Amino acid sequence: MVELSKNHGVYFFLIFLLLSLASQLSSARPSKELKPCKHIVLHMHGVIFNGSNLADATGAAVTSPVGLGNFFFGQVYVFDNPMTKDQNLLSPPMAQAQGFYFYHMKTNYSAWMAFTLVFNSTEHKGTIDVMGSNFIPAKTRNLSIVGGTGDFFMARGILEIETDAAIPYEYYQLKMNVKLYECY
Amino acid sequence: MVELSKNHGVYFFLIFLLLSLASQLSSARPSKELKPCKHIVLHMHGVIFNGSNLADATGAAVTSPVGLGNFFFGQVYVFDNPMTKDQNLLSPPMAQAQGFYFYHMKTNYSAWMAFTLVFNSTEHKGTIDVMGSNFIPAKTRNLSIVGGTGDFFMARGILEIETDAAIPYEYYQLKMNVKLYECY
Amino acid sequence: MVELSKNHGVYFFLIFLLLSLASQLSSARPSKELKPCKHIVLHMHGVIFNGSNLADATGAAVTSPVGLGNFFFGQVYVFDNPMTKDQNLLSPPMAQAQGFYFYHMKTNYSAWMAFTLVFNSTEHKGTIDVMGSNFIPAKTRNLSIVGGTGDFFMARGILEIETDAAIPYEYYQLKMNVKLYECY
Repeated sequence: MVELSKNHGVYFFLIFLLLSLASQLSSARPSKELKPCKHIVLHMHGVIFNGSNLADATGAAVTSPVGLGNFFFGQVYVFDNPMTKDQNLLSPPMAQAQGFYFYHMKTNYSAWMAFTLVFNSTEHKGTIDVMGSNFIPAKTRNLSIVGGTGDFFMARGILEIETDAAIPYEYYQLKMNVKLYECY
Repeated sequence: MVELSKNHGVYFFLIFLLLSLASQLSSARPSKELKPCKHIVLHMHGVIFNGSNLADATGAAVTSPVGLGNFFFGQVYVFDNPMTKDQNLLSPPMAQAQGFYFYHMKTNYSAWMAFTLVFNSTEHKGTIDVMGSNFIPAKTRNLSIVGGTGDFFMARGILEIETDAAIPYEYYQLKMNVKLYECY
Repeated sequence: MVELSKNHGVYFFLIFLLLSLASQLSSARPSKELKPCKHIVLHMHGVIFNGSNLADATGAAVTSPVGLGNFFFGQVYVFDNPMTKDQNLLSPPMAQAQGFYFYHMKTNYSAWMAFTLVFNSTEHKGTIDVMGSNFIPAKTRNLSIVGGTGDFFMARGILEIETDAAIPYEYYQLKMNVKLYECY
């Protein structure tokens, strides 16, 4: 009987190991309710070049609208925008958002975007790559985080965007929720 | 002996558990023969802006070719194309393909593309992000699906493209096989 | 006692199986020190179109700089560059790099890039898709490999770039370390 109960102890140990392995397995493919493995909130500031604001501008149009509707269809912008922890443009930048967008709708403001968040601080070093369609009238827009390097090696996730502020032709501020669901 | 065979029963159970875990493991990294976890077939319609077809146009050139060969090298197009289940341009759109392409070859027609499929129907809500090189003379071209949101949260896969129809400077229709191999 | 030692043999076998499963599991999410599952080194050659070098040119500017600083801010280039195993532009190409880049910094040379490596040789058939910010003054720059097709089905990883050579307005050669960390 002593022998048997020893055996049972081993079985329980093995079954415990199996169950813990199984739970690791199922977490390898997170469900939609899963919490991000990393979550960073930053505010991106875009100051549009008007020909004379050289010191302040962070982005500029590089083509003209083509006349397909009244929402800048076809106009391409390139940017290198600072990202801050709070909503103050003059706060120390935590990252730069580097990339481009272009308007692509006849009947509304929508900007297809692809860009890289470049972190180079004591807190984070590395990059996060984003692409997707940013339909500006929607309260929250989701873009895809498709890769990363450094601290964000091979990252994947969702970038949630909300408009903090916008002054046409001059300035826009976007709240960006960086939610990574695959972290290495 | 009875004791022994009981033990064997437990071993078989444990080995069965191990094997089922192992098969789950190997499916976490699908082989090339694996079937898609989601497969959607749609036809994308592009009507090119000619300066006067404002009502019908879905895309437009935003730069001019640069003169490097005779295949529009360097010309960039922006589009917001409807996608339908059948080949009829006037069928109800299931999604919009929003993005851009540019010709990049001196000796043939090839369009590098990046775009987002935006679904907003009762059937699907969410986005699928695509990029890759579309060598138009090939019967079938494969692009990468690199991310997604909503119903297509964190999707990855392959977009297979075939040309249904093409009228130079006017209209093109592409059959798109959306094959997802990672679904959450 | 003989019976007991037999049982122990089975336990050791089961524990060995568990440990080997566990090691597979942990390799499904590689740590940052993990070795690539595939590593390819190639040198990319870019010959910039100047209006008269039609035979040699592999890329061209498609927009003009916008005047925001002195580092070509906003200028977009399209390219179809050969990639060779050694540093000789005239060696047989192993792949073509097809895509675009644009300068996006006021105070330095930095090119945001997205492109597809197209392999069509006896060695490799398929594509690898890349995007990211290429800060040219840095010795080594890391971009994200976000997808692939064919032999590189669903690939992910890092593209390490170093400058081999550069002649402003004429020619650049970049060493590219293609490091895949997810292979199917």
